[in-house]
Amino acid sequence: MEEAIDAAIENATCTALDIDMVVVANMLGEATNDQAHLGAMAASLLPHQPPALRAEAACASGAVALHTACAMLESGKAETVLVVGVEKMTDVPGSVIASALMGAADAEKDSPSGLTFPGIFGLITNRYMFEHGLTRERLNAVSARHHKNAVSNPFAQFRKEIPAEAISASPKVADPLCMLDCSPISDGAAAVILSTKHESPLKIIASQLTTDALSLCDRQTVTSFAATKDAMVAALQEADITRDQIDCIELHDCFSIAAIISLEDMGFALPGEGINLYTNHESQITINASGGLKACGHPVAATGIKQMIDIAKQLKTSEKTYGLTHNFGGAAATCGIHILEHA
Amino acid sequence: MEEAIDAAIENATCTALDIDMVVVANMLGEATNDQAHLGAMAASLLPHQPPALRAEAACASGAVALHTACAMLESGKAETVLVVGVEKMTDVPGSVIASALMGAADAEKDSPSGLTFPGIFGLITNRYMFEHGLTRERLNAVSARHHKNAVSNPFAQFRKEIPAEAISASPKVADPLCMLDCSPISDGAAAVILSTKHESPLKIIASQLTTDALSLCDRQTVTSFAATKDAMVAALQEADITRDQIDCIELHDCFSIAAIISLEDMGFALPGEGINLYTNHESQITINASGGLKACGHPVAATGIKQMIDIAKQLKTSEKTYGLTHNFGGAAATCGIHILEHA
Repeated sequence: MEEAIDAAIENATCTALDIDMVVVANMLGEATNDQAHLGAMAASLLPHQPPALRAEAACASGAVALHTACAMLESGKAETVLVVGVEKMTDVPGSVIASALMGAADAEKDSPSGLTFPGIFGLITNRYMFEHGLTRERLNAVSARHHKNAVSNPFAQFRKEIPAEAISASPKVADPLCMLDCSPISDGAAAVILSTKHESPLKIIASQLTTDALSLCDRQTVTSFAATKDAMVAALQEADITRDQIDCIELHDCFSIAAIISLEDMGFALPGEGINLYTNHESQITINASGGLKACGHPVAATGIKQMIDIAKQLKTSEKTYGLTHNFGGAAATCGIHILEHA
Repeated sequence: MEEAIDAAIENATCTALDIDMVVVANMLGEATNDQAHLGAMAASLLPHQPPALRAEAACASGAVALHTACAMLESGKAETVLVVGVEKMTDVPGSVIASALMGAADAEKDSPSGLTFPGIFGLITNRYMFEHGLTRERLNAVSARHHKNAVSNPFAQFRKEIPAEAISASPKVADPLCMLDCSPISDGAAAVILSTKHESPLKIIASQLTTDALSLCDRQTVTSFAATKDAMVAALQEADITRDQIDCIELHDCFSIAAIISLEDMGFALPGEGINLYTNHESQITINASGGLKACGHPVAATGIKQMIDIAKQLKTSEKTYGLTHNFGGAAATCGIHILEHA
């Protein structure tokens, strides 16, 4: 967390003392590090301890923290907000992490069945294959692309290209999902500084937060996520742009199937055709150029903020104008979408 | 949580469908109920699942959620926000709770010493006694008053008057603190609805959030809390009133010594003289008429919101105009102060 904060300050047009609010995104600190109260901890890393809080919505904690920061800025409660997402997952056994991550689901309706998140997304993949005829072989394209993209990203957890056929040859985790369909357990932090006072060529032109029923039992379908659909409609309206003006996106590929469903829910593909954006190399939109959650790692609450950093980098190093981040929690019971404009 | 939400809606001038944002305050859900992602869970209790998030800052989570809700309203991101604080502490052994609560301190600097929060406040009490000559006998007045006040509060966990001499005769927990100096382990929830659209005779005229160094090792003193001082100065300035215009307060008496220190830090008493507000029955200001954390219970994140409800009740049933809530987290590494005006 300290490294990410220092890097954000170093790259900003303001100084540490300009920060008048800190929003920390974190999901698992209590389970993995016996540490709550991360707002005060982050503020303690600054010389002047500005007001601070922690925001959480499972894997969407990063987007929720950004949304909260935007509200702090727009309300005038702050002029310059440090938003830092952090997760330390490798200090405890994998079984502890798997249990703690199930806190993102409904502990009374979903967890007692013995489901884990790979299990949930395994079921979703099976149902999607039944509905749309997606084959196991075609699904390989998602993780293969993400790993290929990460080769040039120095911040990615895995920077090795992995051929498509190796994905489905990796150990089964929750049929039909294999190990290489699943984002990994990661340590990581990401920090950005948002300001209404200091200059930047980058502007957040939409910040939308939506929810859906927490339990899968209460959903109409599991092959489409209402929260993503709702957030996308609202984000495009807030930004006052059309979908086809968006040049690059970082989306929430916690599992390979999630990438496909999310592309469809955001309207970049028709239902059942999301995979084409991975198998067709002529795609107009750049998807997860960073490597996504699969290859960059998924330090839960840091992910939504890391996506914002990656879109900012892509916009600043290209002629592109609009980029979008898509970050969801649980099985998309919470979704946050942000649109960034490069002036 | 469901009961508190239903009661809030029933008592509000709006309907459930008017709620366009939910902020949940919770600290321990992951440790005591394997449940994170409480924003989506609370939103799932409403017919239309509005956007939702969880805010956390240990025992100050309630105040932080209120502060976040104010920002959502002032920014225009929402017009009517449901703020609900919830904690379920009795499903796990006391040792699990004691460990989880230490997440409010610094897990690297404070916890390894073996300290618990009663231990921290025991040390603070000892130091305060050394600096100011407070006696164990006089300290009894704090809990005795809180228990007396709670007799008439149907929502209090303990409604029995306890004589002053029984406080120091109760079992020692962390010398010189006895069991009856400590707020209890509680289950509880509290919900309020804040709106810029719907009418109310009550208005939040100040919402301030402050932090201090998370670890006690990094403080100049432990007998005064800088976060409370800072929040009070800022709150009076925001409300544009003076301290002596405040008629009633609900303050954070997690331990009896905390009530005394907080009264001094808020300027209602000089350093070393806070106890006089409990021993002198002519005090001008009404303190913890609800019974405070000691007698109402301290379901961690619900407390800050319950304080708001209690001040609202006191203002609505009297000729009083201004009331204040004071809610801190850990050893006051986070402090939130809200001032309520009754028109």
